Amino acid sequence: MKQYEVVIIGGSAAGPVAGITVKRHYRDASVLVIRTEKESQVMVPCGIPYIFGTVGSPSNNIIPDTLLSSNGIDLLIGEATEIDRDSKTVTTADGETVGYGKLILATGSLPVRPPIPGMELKNVSPVLKDAKLLAYAEPILRKAENIVVIGCGFIGAEMADEVKKASGANVTIVETLKHCLMLALDPEFSHMAEEELAEREIGIITENGVKAIHGNEKVDSVELQNGDKLKADVVIIGIGATPNNELAKKAGLKIGDTKGIWVDEYMRTSDENILACGDCAEKTCFFTGKPSGLRLASIATIEARIAGANIKEFKRKNPGAIGVFATAFGDFAVAAAGLTEKAANKAGFDVVIGEVKTFDRHPGGIPGAKESTVKLMVDKKTGKVIGGEIAGGTTTAEIANVIAMAIQNGMTAEDVALFQMGTQPLLTPSPITHPIVNAAEQALVKIG
Amino acid sequence: MKQYEVVIIGGSAAGPVAGITVKRHYRDASVLVIRTEKESQVMVPCGIPYIFGTVGSPSNNIIPDTLLSSNGIDLLIGEATEIDRDSKTVTTADGETVGYGKLILATGSLPVRPPIPGMELKNVSPVLKDAKLLAYAEPILRKAENIVVIGCGFIGAEMADEVKKASGANVTIVETLKHCLMLALDPEFSHMAEEELAEREIGIITENGVKAIHGNEKVDSVELQNGDKLKADVVIIGIGATPNNELAKKAGLKIGDTKGIWVDEYMRTSDENILACGDCAEKTCFFTGKPSGLRLASIATIEARIAGANIKEFKRKNPGAIGVFATAFGDFAVAAAGLTEKAANKAGFDVVIGEVKTFDRHPGGIPGAKESTVKLMVDKKTGKVIGGEIAGGTTTAEIANVIAMAIQNGMTAEDVALFQMGTQPLLTPSPITHPIVNAAEQALVKIG
Repeated sequence: MKQYEVVIIGGSAAGPVAGITVKRHYRDASVLVIRTEKESQVMVPCGIPYIFGTVGSPSNNIIPDTLLSSNGIDLLIGEATEIDRDSKTVTTADGETVGYGKLILATGSLPVRPPIPGMELKNVSPVLKDAKLLAYAEPILRKAENIVVIGCGFIGAEMADEVKKASGANVTIVETLKHCLMLALDPEFSHMAEEELAEREIGIITENGVKAIHGNEKVDSVELQNGDKLKADVVIIGIGATPNNELAKKAGLKIGDTKGIWVDEYMRTSDENILACGDCAEKTCFFTGKPSGLRLASIATIEARIAGANIKEFKRKNPGAIGVFATAFGDFAVAAAGLTEKAANKAGFDVVIGEVKTFDRHPGGIPGAKESTVKLMVDKKTGKVIGGEIAGGTTTAEIANVIAMAIQNGMTAEDVALFQMGTQPLLTPSPITHPIVNAAEQALVKIG
Repeated sequence: MKQYEVVIIGGSAAGPVAGITVKRHYRDASVLVIRTEKESQVMVPCGIPYIFGTVGSPSNNIIPDTLLSSNGIDLLIGEATEIDRDSKTVTTADGETVGYGKLILATGSLPVRPPIPGMELKNVSPVLKDAKLLAYAEPILRKAENIVVIGCGFIGAEMADEVKKASGANVTIVETLKHCLMLALDPEFSHMAEEELAEREIGIITENGVKAIHGNEKVDSVELQNGDKLKADVVIIGIGATPNNELAKKAGLKIGDTKGIWVDEYMRTSDENILACGDCAEKTCFFTGKPSGLRLASIATIEARIAGANIKEFKRKNPGAIGVFATAFGDFAVAAAGLTEKAANKAGFDVVIGEVKTFDRHPGGIPGAKESTVKLMVDKKTGKVIGGEIAGGTTTAEIANVIAMAIQNGMTAEDVALFQMGTQPLLTPSPITHPIVNAAEQALVKIG
């Protein structure tokens, strides 16, 4: 039986980063990653919506296995089916057994499959991470004439925009909530995204669900809650993901409120020799300390950097997930960091808003400049910035990262008003109308 | 005689922002800006290199006067020639006298005119901020066949690239130092910028100065220190700026080591009723507390936000200038925040470097992705991040701003390694290879 100091189960975002982090902090530790995906078959997770449109094909969206080999990490391809916590071993479906000193679970998440009649029909599928299935789906998608996407969160909206690009089909998104991207954005930002999608000829039906999917072997239509019917030769489901906690459950590990594997602030599960990170792990909100449903590749890697560093001593603590989202449709981008106004109110904060519309380059008339809107959420009681939303051009996500940095440091609106930002005509807003700084000033005035 | 609670001298970046800040924090305060520029004649300062190329003309590069009027700030056009500190009045060249409660000096800087023989020839000029002179220069520049730019700092390099675009002339930069942009960047980043400029057919001559400018009334050639001669029908000088301290000196205010008007951390001059901000004010380095030669529009506005808030009580303190630079040539951009490796060593820091090359989108093969290099400077003693340099695409300057935010908060490499960044395929690097986070991790390993 092979024995490793650290065994990691999972090969997507969290697993490899946990492994690299172990090797960075403990160069001599022996590390094994066990994963189900064959050689050169691990998808870049957030790249999946783009494989048929912008990126071109699944084979252009691979996390290279050299990430493991160049860092001296061993790879075992197979499905881990059992953890024996007493003997500290993992067994795979092929019957291979490996011993561990510490085990890191990075088993990811599984797409939610809603209980809609007709889900079993051909050409109906949630967004999958499986390279083979994606390759199988490619010609079907490219030939489709009518595509229905269920769910207008980030994955749904990105998939819709990209399959439109790949197929030229009629693409319609069906969303039960009032707006697209509503869990991540306030309505005015959702509205901007909806306008952009509409301009790109993506149909959007909100406040309506799918009652049934119809067809004869293959899907041919979708019936909505209000009785309307939509033609469909492909149905894509993007309504979220649920932690893949099966192996952990079977091993008797504690499971959290959102079905993630319970972990403490050191990413340690209820077994002191087992850590968990990424989509499979239970998350805590940075702002409220309560369980959080956030599942993002970025958060997965952050947790992996904590888990990987903590295998011998508790070097790193998880302060809870801030949550930074971004997406783009053409040259329009929208992003958010921390709490929306809506989420902040719901969490009981007394929220003060600062909002500034300017341009992402300066002067505003310079070629390539896009309008940029920044909204900051400030907690009236502490003065701290607890959220930001941005709509604009290609720099939108990095502006969200500037705000994320402010939030992570517990900066107040006063601190942010004195942010020592750099500016340049071709690359940033003007220092005079700088949106983050001026939104902070606005909020300050309101706090008084 | 008119009387204002706050009189501000200067109408470029710092003056208006100081005025707006006063009105934000003290809505009822009466505020007057005195400036020399006529209506709709104030240039966006950093936009000046772009007016003949990208922006098209000086009239497209105006700071709108509505910035003052919409904020209830009065404007007096004229040259302030005297401050009477006893009677607390300012007098202009036209003989108008205005009384002040507090006076804010935002008189800016003047371009350095080197003592080169031939400086007085026609078509030889430093980069000016005067709208009329710029309009006068426009046809001369557009018709030029051979242009020599003296100085390859940001202004020199940007001017060279833009006048090339506007005129199609042969453009050559002459720089005394070993590399372009050498005061802001380490050699490897300077080198990337030089390669980009060379590809854009800008001639670059380094480690060589200008001995004399020749011509008959009008310039026709430039003679270098090594004896070489360059044809030139236009010579542009971009070798820096010096604080415009004349009025302050005349009023007997204390002047600092770099010739800026001396100010304390509240931006107060040696007269408690007079504050100063922007290029005219003496600056202190955030890292060393020593006098600093940084002069940037961004810093000017930050100081203006401090000065403007401090007119009645000391609300804001200046921690010293971090210094965030950025520029772009075509779709290549380069930026820096805080200290370079060279500057950090010179200041006596024991510096540890983390450096990561990745792509600014992910997967790296996604259309539009540009290689992105991030270098972090970490102080071995405290573990704090004290500088960052970035080369890449359009998001480069905002990435520098993320690093600036980290520096401003005194984050250590360990803090930055756990940065809760957001990522998205079309907009940012991968969370796995995230350059800021991984550069911090690299530095940590070296610190041990």
